[in-house]
Amino acid sequence: MKFAYVIGNCVATRKDEKVSGRKLLVIQPVNIKFKASGDPLVAIDAVGAGEGELVLYTSGSSARQTELTEGTPCDCVLMAIVDTVELHGNYIFDKTKESGQ
Amino acid sequence: MKFAYVIGNCVATRKDEKVSGRKLLVIQPVNIKFKASGDPLVAIDAVGAGEGELVLYTSGSSARQTELTEGTPCDCVLMAIVDTVELHGNYIFDKTKESGQ
Amino acid sequence: MKFAYVIGNCVATRKDEKVSGRKLLVIQPVNIKFKASGDPLVAIDAVGAGEGELVLYTSGSSARQTELTEGTPCDCVLMAIVDTVELHGNYIFDKTKESGQ
Amino acid sequence: MKFAYVIGNCVATRKDEKVSGRKLLVIQPVNIKFKASGDPLVAIDAVGAGEGELVLYTSGSSARQTELTEGTPCDCVLMAIVDTVELHGNYIFDKTKESGQ
Amino acid sequence: MKFAYVIGNCVATRKDEKVSGRKLLVIQPVNIKFKASGDPLVAIDAVGAGEGELVLYTSGSSARQTELTEGTPCDCVLMAIVDTVELHGNYIFDKTKESGQ
Repeated sequence: MKFAYVIGNCVATRKDEKVSGRKLLVIQPVNIKFKASGDPLVAIDAVGAGEGELVLYTSGSSARQTELTEGTPCDCVLMAIVDTVELHGNYIFDKTKESGQ
Repeated sequence: MKFAYVIGNCVATRKDEKVSGRKLLVIQPVNIKFKASGDPLVAIDAVGAGEGELVLYTSGSSARQTELTEGTPCDCVLMAIVDTVELHGNYIFDKTKESGQ
Repeated sequence: MKFAYVIGNCVATRKDEKVSGRKLLVIQPVNIKFKASGDPLVAIDAVGAGEGELVLYTSGSSARQTELTEGTPCDCVLMAIVDTVELHGNYIFDKTKESGQ
Repeated sequence: MKFAYVIGNCVATRKDEKVSGRKLLVIQPVNIKFKASGDPLVAIDAVGAGEGELVLYTSGSSARQTELTEGTPCDCVLMAIVDTVELHGNYIFDKTKESGQ
Repeated sequence: MKFAYVIGNCVATRKDEKVSGRKLLVIQPVNIKFKASGDPLVAIDAVGAGEGELVLYTSGSSARQTELTEGTPCDCVLMAIVDTVELHGNYIFDKTKESGQ
């Protein structure tokens, strides 16, 4: 899984019927400093994430292993909302302190 | 899923029989500014997209989860035509206003 | 799928028995200008491509969806020989005129 | 599989129910010199690795082939703790001598 | 598939039980000039390759299609030992002449 921020959403009325009704969130993958790294992705949200939240996303066939994405043409799913990240014994992200981004 | 523009098409009379009859669209993945990023891809179109449209594409095994691509040697499918993209509360793409590209 | 030129072949007498007898072609992925982009790949050929031809290849699990590659440890298959590529209304590749490369 | 160091952990109380109870480790992929290469990943740990250890991780659908990750939206699993690495006849990593990182 | 040299091996006594007993080889992917390209990988060997040999490796789910790797958390398998590589009509690698690397 990789870290990303939810930065927005995307509306597409014409889409494959299997993803009908799924909300499409735009996410920005981030590096170890929580800065943007690489191009934005569009993900289906399995955990009710909101804009600005740090999340984990899963790519590829594993993205189809949630109830919401099973059997759909989805290769990117949000599967966790990050509370804290601890590296080398230091908390570098704490959601309650609204650090990051 | 990732953002791309449909920039053309590709004809191949000799192709694996499982993709026989499928239209092959050439798409250009784009970055957060909707500018070209990386090499072009060739996708099977599951939503009836036209040239110039901003679309979402799915890669890998998930690309085989549409009716048109099931069981075929296809690793890239167009599965949504983008109407709007909203980032940090601002509409940065609106199809009806023909913005982008 | 991605564009590549067939640039040669590779012989390997000792290989996994499931790919026994399969011809291994060396291909060079290309960018939008049909110039080399990235490292060469070795693909199993499902369409009878010859050296110098512009082809489409499929990666990952989808590469196992041809009759020749089903159930084999193959992650790259040639599944189409390109006749023409049209971008923004202009033919940028036409096999009969031997353009490209 | 690729080499990485375990550099920390990540807590996410809201996550897909299928990964409920799984510990999420933050890992840093490394190059041939065992220096950081690329962005950090978050992995499920199938072998009981601890911070600072050199491990091997598996990506993609293969990451779901452990008892702990089967059927879950997990695309990255720790599946081995490295004892030694020998290149061209020289030991370049030996866990008992705490080399590396 | 991609080209790589076998450059060493890796010992891991603590590893997922499904890969128990499998030898782990360290391989270095190479470019068209057979020079190192990208970070080293660790692969399970399905063909009995030795250090210094030029091999082909398969990634992703296709890496699980050998007898040795079926159902295991393995995303990289050696599936062929290269004898010769011919590009544009010239042999650029011939194992019997110990060219390369």
